[in-house]
Amino acid sequence: MSNHTYKKIELVGSSTLNIEDAVQNAVAKASLTEKNLRWLEVVETRAHLEDGKVAHWQVTVKIGATLE
Amino acid sequence: MSNHTYKKIELVGSSTLNIEDAVQNAVAKASLTEKNLRWLEVVETRAHLEDGKVAHWQVTVKIGATLE
Amino acid sequence: MSNHTYKKIELVGSSTLNIEDAVQNAVAKASLTEKNLRWLEVVETRAHLEDGKVAHWQVTVKIGATLE
Amino acid sequence: MSNHTYKKIELVGSSTLNIEDAVQNAVAKASLTEKNLRWLEVVETRAHLEDGKVAHWQVTVKIGATLE
Amino acid sequence: MSNHTYKKIELVGSSTLNIEDAVQNAVAKASLTEKNLRWLEVVETRAHLEDGKVAHWQVTVKIGATLE
Amino acid sequence: MSNHTYKKIELVGSSTLNIEDAVQNAVAKASLTEKNLRWLEVVETRAHLEDGKVAHWQVTVKIGATLE
Amino acid sequence: MSNHTYKKIELVGSSTLNIEDAVQNAVAKASLTEKNLRWLEVVETRAHLEDGKVAHWQVTVKIGATLE
Amino acid sequence: MSNHTYKKIELVGSSTLNIEDAVQNAVAKASLTEKNLRWLEVVETRAHLEDGKVAHWQVTVKIGATLE
Amino acid sequence: MSNHTYKKIELVGSSTLNIEDAVQNAVAKASLTEKNLRWLEVVETRAHLEDGKVAHWQVTVKIGATLE
Amino acid sequence: MSNHTYKKIELVGSSTLNIEDAVQNAVAKASLTEKNLRWLEVVETRAHLEDGKVAHWQVTVKIGATLE
Amino acid sequence: MSNHTYKKIELVGSSTLNIEDAVQNAVAKASLTEKNLRWLEVVETRAHLEDGKVAHWQVTVKIGATLE
Amino acid sequence: MSNHTYKKIELVGSSTLNIEDAVQNAVAKASLTEKNLRWLEVVETRAHLEDGKVAHWQVTVKIGATLE
Repeated sequence: MSNHTYKKIELVGSSTLNIEDAVQNAVAKASLTEKNLRWLEVVETRAHLEDGKVAHWQVTVKIGATLE
Repeated sequence: MSNHTYKKIELVGSSTLNIEDAVQNAVAKASLTEKNLRWLEVVETRAHLEDGKVAHWQVTVKIGATLE
Repeated sequence: MSNHTYKKIELVGSSTLNIEDAVQNAVAKASLTEKNLRWLEVVETRAHLEDGKVAHWQVTVKIGATLE
Repeated sequence: MSNHTYKKIELVGSSTLNIEDAVQNAVAKASLTEKNLRWLEVVETRAHLEDGKVAHWQVTVKIGATLE
Repeated sequence: MSNHTYKKIELVGSSTLNIEDAVQNAVAKASLTEKNLRWLEVVETRAHLEDGKVAHWQVTVKIGATLE
Repeated sequence: MSNHTYKKIELVGSSTLNIEDAVQNAVAKASLTEKNLRWLEVVETRAHLEDGKVAHWQVTVKIGATLE
Repeated sequence: MSNHTYKKIELVGSSTLNIEDAVQNAVAKASLTEKNLRWLEVVETRAHLEDGKVAHWQVTVKIGATLE
Repeated sequence: MSNHTYKKIELVGSSTLNIEDAVQNAVAKASLTEKNLRWLEVVETRAHLEDGKVAHWQVTVKIGATLE
Repeated sequence: MSNHTYKKIELVGSSTLNIEDAVQNAVAKASLTEKNLRWLEVVETRAHLEDGKVAHWQVTVKIGATLE
Repeated sequence: MSNHTYKKIELVGSSTLNIEDAVQNAVAKASLTEKNLRWLEVVETRAHLEDGKVAHWQVTVKIGATLE
Repeated sequence: MSNHTYKKIELVGSSTLNIEDAVQNAVAKASLTEKNLRWLEVVETRAHLEDGKVAHWQVTVKIGATLE
Repeated sequence: MSNHTYKKIELVGSSTLNIEDAVQNAVAKASLTEKNLRWLEVVETRAHLEDGKVAHWQVTVKIGATLE
């Protein structure tokens, strides 16, 4: 296991619900093309505002995936 | 649209519920005096503790608003 | 009150539910051995991924406690 | 002069031309309501892209002004 | 108390005496127009030099105030 | 629109002219293989020096593109 | 001496007097339970405000102590 | 040469031997699919621990490669 | 496994040999009093110099250990 | 070439024209006393303001030069 | 004045008295060999501890001086 | 000893061998012109790549030396 190499990709997920859902949306999208997703790090949390309220959350994550 | 100027104000919102609600409370307060709120960036997340539990969340945000 | 000294300890809490629950788990664990927990600062938010989904959240916090 | 106090305000200026013009636009806007602008610090440089080109620059600055 | 919202303003205070006095000068100035100042964070410490000596200290602080 | 996911890629563009042109060169290159470029953030500005002058600018940017 | 190991602990000291005294209070408290304190690094300087003045300084330090 | 564009990719290499070997493993893996690797920057150094010892090093690097 | 809580402790290890050995010395010391060491992060690398050479390396690490 | 050592010096260049010219002025000044300037990194961009406009740009750079 | 170039040098001053005196000692030393010292920025504040007390303060500053 | 002043210089050392050797090369070069080198801090670790392998390590260090 000590010889594994991982790549990290940076995505921004969005959601009208909450921060966790925005992250899950990014992970779901990444899993369509990348296998072996292993972990993620939240890099930045932003939100788009409309009518004086949060309209949707935008969360930037770095996702680590095993390189085969 | 390329000539817009925005100002950024820094607020700390609180909530007993969760991080998103603390942010929403800050945005709601800002919207009482500022028009045209456009986006926010979460700067820092803290919590006040009582009796060995989170009593309320305190989230610092920077809010961007169009300068008229 | 101005003469209080606080210590800060760094913990990582986990949860399958959400970020706030991971933080609460860390605080609950800390309260077993430390008295007078006063505040916390979220330092880093990560997640462990399995099957293309977040399996559990891992949140690093610094917790401040009054030194007696 | 050693007793001066300054406030710092954070603005985002935009321009289709270049980074310097985006900054100047932010300063020009600030000067409409603030007197005694003294210096600025560039905090972040971003750009909005359209059709595979920079459509306009967005530069965040902190502007220091003497408090009277 | 968990529903309080705070705003944070950034000021630079100056003093020929020392760092603490520069901070106090910034707070004194802020208190002329802002009510309910609650805490501050020192952001940056600089000094203006003349004749090979510190002529005055310039300390940047962020001041938190309760939003009513 | 709240369900969009974006990826961020990191490029270094070069130019003998100026900082903006180095950025534009990176964007132009990215647009050859990536569709739907939306925004960029300048991460680092460096320059290669020759004969005591800037020979070319090297600007690192993160470019955000909509994931389809 | 090259084989020494040190631990670093993080404390917040308070004082109504000044920044140095807040640091000294944290060191004094640490010396009650830790032997062989060797150095400290100031991590953050904050202050609690009351009546438009600094009521007390709160300085976060990391203290290094030789592990026996 | 001033018109070159580079992309930067982020990898985590592992090794039971040492930090340099972990980096070399990441570079070797990258060279299987990427041509024209030019430089790297070490971003983070971590290690997995077992039985009170470092079991393997995990080093995150950003690798720059010429875009053709 | 998702309910584990970890604590992080900060140590500085030293060695006349190299960076990895300084880290191993810190881990060895930690393992005398802490069980279940899991991972570490290198925070800072310094060296003490004597006679124009590195006399010993001093590496600061944060070590994560499972809280039982 | 692998045995080269470089020194890095930090300068602030000024210009009424633009950011690039401020950098070039710093490089020109450095080249009067330092040989073999190789690269630079922009560290900070500030501007002095007068009459509600940028009067001159002040750009801090770190310049790398081969040590002979 | 817009054509001035400044160099920045980094020094660590020490004092048994307080932070300001440690800074003044660094400036005094710099003024022995450098003319036209203009400003300084405090980069880091540390202290050497002996007998459970601060023995002396060590303050790292960057000093800006006009290049003639 | 509390009145010592130190200067810090920034160098980049190179080596085909490893990180420690790159640092030692920088220190050896510094010791040719500077007396009383006391400590160093590793600021950045990079490597030049050739043929899909690390060709040489480039390590930036800040070296502290007693000012006489």
